[in-house]
Amino acid sequence: MAPPHPVPLARARLLTSPSVSPAVVRELERITGRPAAPACAETPGEPFLYVGEALPEALRTPRLLWFHSVNAGTDALLAAGPWPEGALLTRTVGRMGERIAQYTLAWVLAECQSVPEHTAQHARSEWRRLPSELAAGRTAVVHGTGRIGSAVAGLLRACSVRTVGVSRTPRAVPPGFDRTVLAGSQEETEALAEARWVVSALPLTDATEHFFDAARFSAMRGATFLNVGRGATVDMAALERSLNDGTVRRAVLDVLPDEPAGPADRAWRLPRTVITSHSAGITAEEDVVADFASCWQAVVEGRTPALAVDTGRGY
Amino acid sequence: MAPPHPVPLARARLLTSPSVSPAVVRELERITGRPAAPACAETPGEPFLYVGEALPEALRTPRLLWFHSVNAGTDALLAAGPWPEGALLTRTVGRMGERIAQYTLAWVLAECQSVPEHTAQHARSEWRRLPSELAAGRTAVVHGTGRIGSAVAGLLRACSVRTVGVSRTPRAVPPGFDRTVLAGSQEETEALAEARWVVSALPLTDATEHFFDAARFSAMRGATFLNVGRGATVDMAALERSLNDGTVRRAVLDVLPDEPAGPADRAWRLPRTVITSHSAGITAEEDVVADFASCWQAVVEGRTPALAVDTGRGY
Repeated sequence: MAPPHPVPLARARLLTSPSVSPAVVRELERITGRPAAPACAETPGEPFLYVGEALPEALRTPRLLWFHSVNAGTDALLAAGPWPEGALLTRTVGRMGERIAQYTLAWVLAECQSVPEHTAQHARSEWRRLPSELAAGRTAVVHGTGRIGSAVAGLLRACSVRTVGVSRTPRAVPPGFDRTVLAGSQEETEALAEARWVVSALPLTDATEHFFDAARFSAMRGATFLNVGRGATVDMAALERSLNDGTVRRAVLDVLPDEPAGPADRAWRLPRTVITSHSAGITAEEDVVADFASCWQAVVEGRTPALAVDTGRGY
Repeated sequence: MAPPHPVPLARARLLTSPSVSPAVVRELERITGRPAAPACAETPGEPFLYVGEALPEALRTPRLLWFHSVNAGTDALLAAGPWPEGALLTRTVGRMGERIAQYTLAWVLAECQSVPEHTAQHARSEWRRLPSELAAGRTAVVHGTGRIGSAVAGLLRACSVRTVGVSRTPRAVPPGFDRTVLAGSQEETEALAEARWVVSALPLTDATEHFFDAARFSAMRGATFLNVGRGATVDMAALERSLNDGTVRRAVLDVLPDEPAGPADRAWRLPRTVITSHSAGITAEEDVVADFASCWQAVVEGRTPALAVDTGRGY
């Protein structure tokens, strides 16, 4: 995906979605050296770049040179319709890898150290030593070996956890991992069987929908499953069966197939599960500004930004 | 403290306390090449070495060559009476540094990631994004720069937390710390003011009783205080005042001046506090065996074991 041609970019308008705060808009104006205008219901007459969450129908036009997403996930954006040909798509990752890694480690260690049980015991003024588990020496399998999976693995490894990455295509072992295996291989099945934790950091694409199916869950031998990727990568009925039969020990789900989950959602009733309302990978305003600035720098220098999304693969 | 003279050790008896499990006793017999006997109420007639928790009065004799403590803390042992002259005291540290470090990080990240709040929200089937805090870039002040403080700091630093050690004597910066300051110095006061977390890993000695007093707590500016050392190092009334006026944001207390705490203990009523029943630094049976074996090795080679306690300083 080539960056927009320098000539149209020079005279492109900067449009922003209403969800972008005035403080961020001011920074975008400073970086691009042009005034920003709110996107309106009609298709702009000139080439433009757009910063926002979703891409309104009126902006799905060949005049769109570049869309910068304020979020990291672009699955909903790409699923909403064909991507305007030639338009650059970049995203905000920010310190998301670091945030999701700290979220994952928090829940891994909370389980090891019985944080919820201690909290409940304290509320009863009860002094009773609870067993703790040393994470060191145990194995975590992390699905997704990109920036986020790599950050998750790196932090787990700081606690002397062995880290196995699962990737869908062969690749060199990324930072944070002790080794990687291919999705669907016998090695993956063996890794799932030895895992104390299975962490999904998968994006949602056609190839990852219901990736965590009955076969994968039943390959586990008492692992705790954490999903920090996308809810629809999980077959929830299969997860429920494996929680019931114990092949999955516990689940920590930051994401669900249907969000937000209403009080009647069956997910709340899964045994030994905590749902955390898509709180793991929040992007802060400073992240949007910093990531847009680095993309802008790449674009004006004629390079493809590192945060560009391959709109064909979907991530 | 010199190791016991090789000649008396060669014919010393091996005594064990009733609290040492049969499996551990068998290992001690294997390591020392002699049968173990349970300690009884009368003073042994020959030189002996003893493995246990406390030192019964009958064993406080010059015939005691060596006491190996199955615990890391030896303050109660040393406070119970004068130490028999010339007797070696060693202790079990095991993977205690690693365990206490994982405990500390678990509670630091649980606070950052609102683990108890998410758990409570889940119980109400409530979908609501909660804010999280990135530990990275914040400062932790760790009191105690020995093995345990160093392990705690090292793991916090893996989450990009800045780590300041406080020591009572000048020393080189130990692993895990970005820098160290002297206890009681202006630098310590400044570090307490900038700290997001203050972690105590202090042993209990005459010099550390009520070390955390009104002056230290009121130097904090909203730090969360975690005590993984000894309860009596804290002036609990001063802590309560600082929790009430907000200079201390929260407290996580693994240890208390009076343990076990009964249901009427005022500590249970401290605001924004969790007490975890001295669960952080559990020593496992394998730790006792491994640490005794390394001490034995040093002793038979005429070296002072690395796990020897300076009975004058108290740690």
